[in-house]
Amino acid sequence: MTILTSNNPACITVDGFKQLLKDAHPFSELLEIEIIEIGHGTSVLLLPERTSHQRLGGMIAGPMLMGLADLALYAAVVGATGNAAAVTASLSINFLRKSPPGGVLANCKIVKTGRLAAGEVSLVPAAGGEPVAHAISTWSLPKSST
Amino acid sequence: MTILTSNNPACITVDGFKQLLKDAHPFSELLEIEIIEIGHGTSVLLLPERTSHQRLGGMIAGPMLMGLADLALYAAVVGATGNAAAVTASLSINFLRKSPPGGVLANCKIVKTGRLAAGEVSLVPAAGGEPVAHAISTWSLPKSST
Amino acid sequence: MTILTSNNPACITVDGFKQLLKDAHPFSELLEIEIIEIGHGTSVLLLPERTSHQRLGGMIAGPMLMGLADLALYAAVVGATGNAAAVTASLSINFLRKSPPGGVLANCKIVKTGRLAAGEVSLVPAAGGEPVAHAISTWSLPKSST
Amino acid sequence: MTILTSNNPACITVDGFKQLLKDAHPFSELLEIEIIEIGHGTSVLLLPERTSHQRLGGMIAGPMLMGLADLALYAAVVGATGNAAAVTASLSINFLRKSPPGGVLANCKIVKTGRLAAGEVSLVPAAGGEPVAHAISTWSLPKSST
Repeated sequence: MTILTSNNPACITVDGFKQLLKDAHPFSELLEIEIIEIGHGTSVLLLPERTSHQRLGGMIAGPMLMGLADLALYAAVVGATGNAAAVTASLSINFLRKSPPGGVLANCKIVKTGRLAAGEVSLVPAAGGEPVAHAISTWSLPKSST
Repeated sequence: MTILTSNNPACITVDGFKQLLKDAHPFSELLEIEIIEIGHGTSVLLLPERTSHQRLGGMIAGPMLMGLADLALYAAVVGATGNAAAVTASLSINFLRKSPPGGVLANCKIVKTGRLAAGEVSLVPAAGGEPVAHAISTWSLPKSST
Repeated sequence: MTILTSNNPACITVDGFKQLLKDAHPFSELLEIEIIEIGHGTSVLLLPERTSHQRLGGMIAGPMLMGLADLALYAAVVGATGNAAAVTASLSINFLRKSPPGGVLANCKIVKTGRLAAGEVSLVPAAGGEPVAHAISTWSLPKSST
Repeated sequence: MTILTSNNPACITVDGFKQLLKDAHPFSELLEIEIIEIGHGTSVLLLPERTSHQRLGGMIAGPMLMGLADLALYAAVVGATGNAAAVTASLSINFLRKSPPGGVLANCKIVKTGRLAAGEVSLVPAAGGEPVAHAISTWSLPKSST
């Protein structure tokens, strides 16, 4: 069981992760998410403002926020383990309030690795303010060929 | 508290729901989901097979499946209540197994309405077989202008 | 990956499971839950009516219902796998409505086994009526010595 | 929508909360949880070490940890709102690792209040070390007579 409060370097760089998405994860183009930072069990990603991401009332639609949370978890899990074959086992999200205009930042932290990894993500307005959603998630780490 | 085992007709038709998506939910075009059926607290939706929905290993990416589950819940909540202003309050999903080739069907059932609605969605391969994911969710029902 | 729609017999009997609880799970005495039925990936358990289980308003307290759901999942996982070392990895529950007087039945069904198991539980009044809670859960299956 | 980073005092004292549990929440005696601290949307509770809380392998059983998390959320919700009629609407928990010997502390923080409240709880060994579980939860806030 890895203790994740280490100062170890990330197992993948931002550029390496972008290349991984481009090579092997076609879905990631749909959401146009920017990868800001990846650490050893942490990540910061940005969902830019897009009219095409909205639902009734001008809110950012739930599926966009869930996609952002899931990709932030993937970045942080790969950052902690180097295992690109990691897959979501479970994800639970609470939607807290309507997002104000502007993009949304995901701040992710992995709290356990092992056979399963687990982590949390806070989604906050890029312009500042109270969180718009909060998720926890477990990930399965298959024996990887990466 | 509405008992949902009624034979009441849906509060919205499939065509009415498609129009609602087109008019007010720009995000829904991204996923290209087909609305198959809406009842009073039930829905069946189809996520068609798309290379652009895949992640590493040729699996359908988690965010696509979460988007499918969320939209199926929205259709069933509007089918039960007519309240288009309904928003996801919480969603929890377990990913069970890799989806085989082909589309994925969402079968959704609302189990409670009131100030909050709650429901579940089973995601199954359109070609048949064991479920690929299973979600439960609560929805907030603001006083609606719809 | 086991297909769970089989007619295989349960890997443990009700009496064997009661003995397992008595021998190795001291906590299970606290809730006084009755084991009604265990199948290959299914279980039915009963939380009897107790004043000591109540919270403000005469409702059965959430922790009692979560305990019932968790034990029903354990029974069904052991019923499907024989692995008594199984532990909860994640559990998500929606509370739907106040329970009427009387006990509460848990109906549990495992939908996947493998490195992880997953299942769902519906909690319904023993006297009949709409469900009071609904949970989904994943379980880790360590290599067992059982 | 209340911003919860305020320095407002808690809407209930530790002693007032203990009295509320004694008067109206019989279930709370079962778990023997100690109320350490309650703030305006925060709480710290302690589950003391008890053989009667254990499951196979000498671990603290999941239902005890879920009970601890739920009661910590209740304390923090009442601390933020004064609404004793608040009830859990949803709770999702990830179990991260076996708890070492000794008690378990719950550190809870409410991140939203309104028609629904939402919060998170981290469960950590009282003796120090990595978290053993992590939960997020939503609460329904009925119009209260408190």
